[in-house]
Amino acid sequence: MSPVYKEVELHELSKSFNLDLKGNPSTKISGVNDIRAAGSSEIAFLFSEKGIDIAVNSKAGALVLRPEWIDKRLENRNLLLTDNPKLAMARIHCYLLDKQPEREGVSKQAFIEQSANVDSTAVIYPFVYIGKNSVIGKNVIIYPNTHIGSEVKIGDGTTIHAGCSINNDTIIGKECIIHSGTVIGSDGYGFVKDRNHNYKVPQVGRVRIGDDCEFGANNTIDRATFGETVIGNNVKTDNLVHIAHNCQIGDHCLIIAMSGVAGSTVLGENVTIAGNSAVMDHLKIGDNAIIGSQTLVIKDVPDGQVFTGYPAVDHRTWLRMTTAQQKLPELVKRVAQLEKELSSIKGSGEGSK
Amino acid sequence: MSPVYKEVELHELSKSFNLDLKGNPSTKISGVNDIRAAGSSEIAFLFSEKGIDIAVNSKAGALVLRPEWIDKRLENRNLLLTDNPKLAMARIHCYLLDKQPEREGVSKQAFIEQSANVDSTAVIYPFVYIGKNSVIGKNVIIYPNTHIGSEVKIGDGTTIHAGCSINNDTIIGKECIIHSGTVIGSDGYGFVKDRNHNYKVPQVGRVRIGDDCEFGANNTIDRATFGETVIGNNVKTDNLVHIAHNCQIGDHCLIIAMSGVAGSTVLGENVTIAGNSAVMDHLKIGDNAIIGSQTLVIKDVPDGQVFTGYPAVDHRTWLRMTTAQQKLPELVKRVAQLEKELSSIKGSGEGSK
Amino acid sequence: MSPVYKEVELHELSKSFNLDLKGNPSTKISGVNDIRAAGSSEIAFLFSEKGIDIAVNSKAGALVLRPEWIDKRLENRNLLLTDNPKLAMARIHCYLLDKQPEREGVSKQAFIEQSANVDSTAVIYPFVYIGKNSVIGKNVIIYPNTHIGSEVKIGDGTTIHAGCSINNDTIIGKECIIHSGTVIGSDGYGFVKDRNHNYKVPQVGRVRIGDDCEFGANNTIDRATFGETVIGNNVKTDNLVHIAHNCQIGDHCLIIAMSGVAGSTVLGENVTIAGNSAVMDHLKIGDNAIIGSQTLVIKDVPDGQVFTGYPAVDHRTWLRMTTAQQKLPELVKRVAQLEKELSSIKGSGEGSK
Repeated sequence: MSPVYKEVELHELSKSFNLDLKGNPSTKISGVNDIRAAGSSEIAFLFSEKGIDIAVNSKAGALVLRPEWIDKRLENRNLLLTDNPKLAMARIHCYLLDKQPEREGVSKQAFIEQSANVDSTAVIYPFVYIGKNSVIGKNVIIYPNTHIGSEVKIGDGTTIHAGCSINNDTIIGKECIIHSGTVIGSDGYGFVKDRNHNYKVPQVGRVRIGDDCEFGANNTIDRATFGETVIGNNVKTDNLVHIAHNCQIGDHCLIIAMSGVAGSTVLGENVTIAGNSAVMDHLKIGDNAIIGSQTLVIKDVPDGQVFTGYPAVDHRTWLRMTTAQQKLPELVKRVAQLEKELSSIKGSGEGSK
Repeated sequence: MSPVYKEVELHELSKSFNLDLKGNPSTKISGVNDIRAAGSSEIAFLFSEKGIDIAVNSKAGALVLRPEWIDKRLENRNLLLTDNPKLAMARIHCYLLDKQPEREGVSKQAFIEQSANVDSTAVIYPFVYIGKNSVIGKNVIIYPNTHIGSEVKIGDGTTIHAGCSINNDTIIGKECIIHSGTVIGSDGYGFVKDRNHNYKVPQVGRVRIGDDCEFGANNTIDRATFGETVIGNNVKTDNLVHIAHNCQIGDHCLIIAMSGVAGSTVLGENVTIAGNSAVMDHLKIGDNAIIGSQTLVIKDVPDGQVFTGYPAVDHRTWLRMTTAQQKLPELVKRVAQLEKELSSIKGSGEGSK
Repeated sequence: MSPVYKEVELHELSKSFNLDLKGNPSTKISGVNDIRAAGSSEIAFLFSEKGIDIAVNSKAGALVLRPEWIDKRLENRNLLLTDNPKLAMARIHCYLLDKQPEREGVSKQAFIEQSANVDSTAVIYPFVYIGKNSVIGKNVIIYPNTHIGSEVKIGDGTTIHAGCSINNDTIIGKECIIHSGTVIGSDGYGFVKDRNHNYKVPQVGRVRIGDDCEFGANNTIDRATFGETVIGNNVKTDNLVHIAHNCQIGDHCLIIAMSGVAGSTVLGENVTIAGNSAVMDHLKIGDNAIIGSQTLVIKDVPDGQVFTGYPAVDHRTWLRMTTAQQKLPELVKRVAQLEKELSSIKGSGEGSK
């Protein structure tokens, strides 16, 4: 379904987001679009001064940009001014989207165990299973073919897309979004090897997730061996992300596609892990740290540091190493040449004795 | 279910694929098998001259091989000759397979929203959900527990395996195969950080997929922020592949297991990405380029180039770097030795003054 | 659901696992917990001598530890003594867990094809589909939204979690656990390129899995082109693991999260592959070999070897290379300095002639 928008007048956006307005305050806006594709009822956003010509030619009903980018050619346009057009875009777009669900209530083709408690405002699609004693909050939406285990709690306003599995005992906060195919609360990976045989370590803890989190598609987040795997508030993961048992992921962390965090590792607040990276087990990644793409982290990372590499080192060191590595084949030849020359000097020196 | 084959006579294969035939043209063939396991009603394929003894001992009813590999010991056998036995294998095997579905029509245990339009020849398994206004083409097969969102279009002859989620607005072409657990059209990963808080960037574009594509199991292909994430024709992905929002993947691309392409990156035609690799965002990978295994691509790759490494460099450079790296610990010692010797020469030089 | 435990007296554990007992043999134990959180009816485990103070302060009803760690302060406690507390923990915890399923029999909301054969002791949740001629063994549990294809065999005591897809012809042994979202028996990745066009190679083999295996969430295990992809006994995979067509994985192998094994590769017995690693196709990894984290294996690995790196080399070599690489930027400067000095020596030598 194409997105459905509320209709507002421009002054409402100006007030709600505290943005200076130039032009006609009663311009009606009922959509958001890319600046090239936007029409007269849509608002569009300019993210760099270089795009000013595109803005001039845009048919958007209103434009959002930095005040210093204004140009004579924009004099007769409806403008909202901000120092952070990207942030304005995110917030205005969310504000305008009308999130009415396409269905109402609990489908007769869903299966809710009798002891489960589903709020009357929740929307449950066909082929959703909800297990014993689970509690589904207000305005929760659960799309088809998703499984909710026993003793699960889903907070108000959370949306769970199709084909997810939220296993027993998981606690999910408010206003979260979980994309399709994501598995939460499956067993952590724990085995003890004895004379080659692998014995299972039962995983009897759970997963606890804060508010305002979003998990991409086909994530896997494991329950704790004992206790809890904890995901803070406002954590956002991309697709195919793995979080192992007993991890603690601080508030506001970003984990980008195909990255994983191994068992018992603790991420501080506001950590960013770029794509295809792995953080080994039992480590501590400090607040505001950034891990580069395809990095293997094998030791703790202090607060605020940027680490990249295989294995991870300080990012500037990695850049220097990477540059040097490309000179390495030539360096091998240069060292051989030095050895030859030195040997020749020593030879002639000895010869001259 | 074991594969079901049509029965044909050998001359039919010879004509259909324009292959020279030696032996009995009316030999009946009703199966394809590995050359070691094939029986008298099956056709088998030889892929290298080294396997000629295996071919001689094979009980296959017919053999396909290159003409120059023929051996006196194969004189009395039924042979089809081709310069490309691998291609013949692919095409003959597809030709012989009888793709009759195991069920017919729409299961009563499926849930089809009233406004959806499912062709009468489509096969819909139990526990499939099809959303509002979606259109399902001729001879489409959708296996159990798959979710089709609203406003989705599935082209004729496409097969979607169990447990997939094809989200709202996705357009899929003809004769595609989507393996189990694959998610198409989930939200792209877009957040704006402001004073540590992550604000969601709504993702209101869609995914458009061409004809004759095949996606492996547990892939994730994200919808565009605005506009479209585009997959061309005849694109083939392996398992656990990730394609981010607003990517464009050209015709005939191959993306091998556990690889990902980050946001807005454009792959030309016929690009190959080997396993466990990552291509960063906003890049352009040229036509016919090849990306090696476990490679991190951080800049554009020109047409036809082979790039490997962390980060990616020209493949031959990478091979030289890799060889040199293994000499590196020894090189460090050699440089220390040179320094020592040079210092000794300088010392003796100074001493002799 | 919180874990449910049997109640036993301590002497029963002592006898069953052949562990020396100190304290009161009739102490009742009805649970297992982390040593910090355990209460008087729970048993807890000490894994290193450093934790002895924690053990002293633990409220656990019984403690398991190595005999040499016993301390005067533990004199009045109930103790079980073992040289391997981790193994004891795994085995005692499994022993105490009461695995009674939460439901009984076949849900009316499941769909079982008439020719399928489901044992009367199996538990089949709502929205499970079981295909033609499939055989489900004793005490099997299949959670919601899982798809079992045609001609599949599931051995006694196996548990398949929610949202899995076990495709046609797959054979799974006894006492296996398959976590949510895992796909077994999807097509192997086989295409032949001819003038850029990718032709599909049909995949008509199957997957055969031994006894006592456990697969993490969102794994993908592909059927063979011909014949079988074989997983031995007691193999344990973590989340997001990929095993390609025609692989053979020996008994007792461990494959950790986000790792993959490419087509036709053979793993011997008791191989360990650490996280985020890739093993290329058609290789042989010897018995008891260990592959380090984020490693790319491009050639065979002999029995018992430890390989790490990109590409993989002997682990000690990799450690030396890694250390040397960090010195590389400095080494480049040192070589330039050597060249300068040598040139100056040669110059002065020539000048002095």
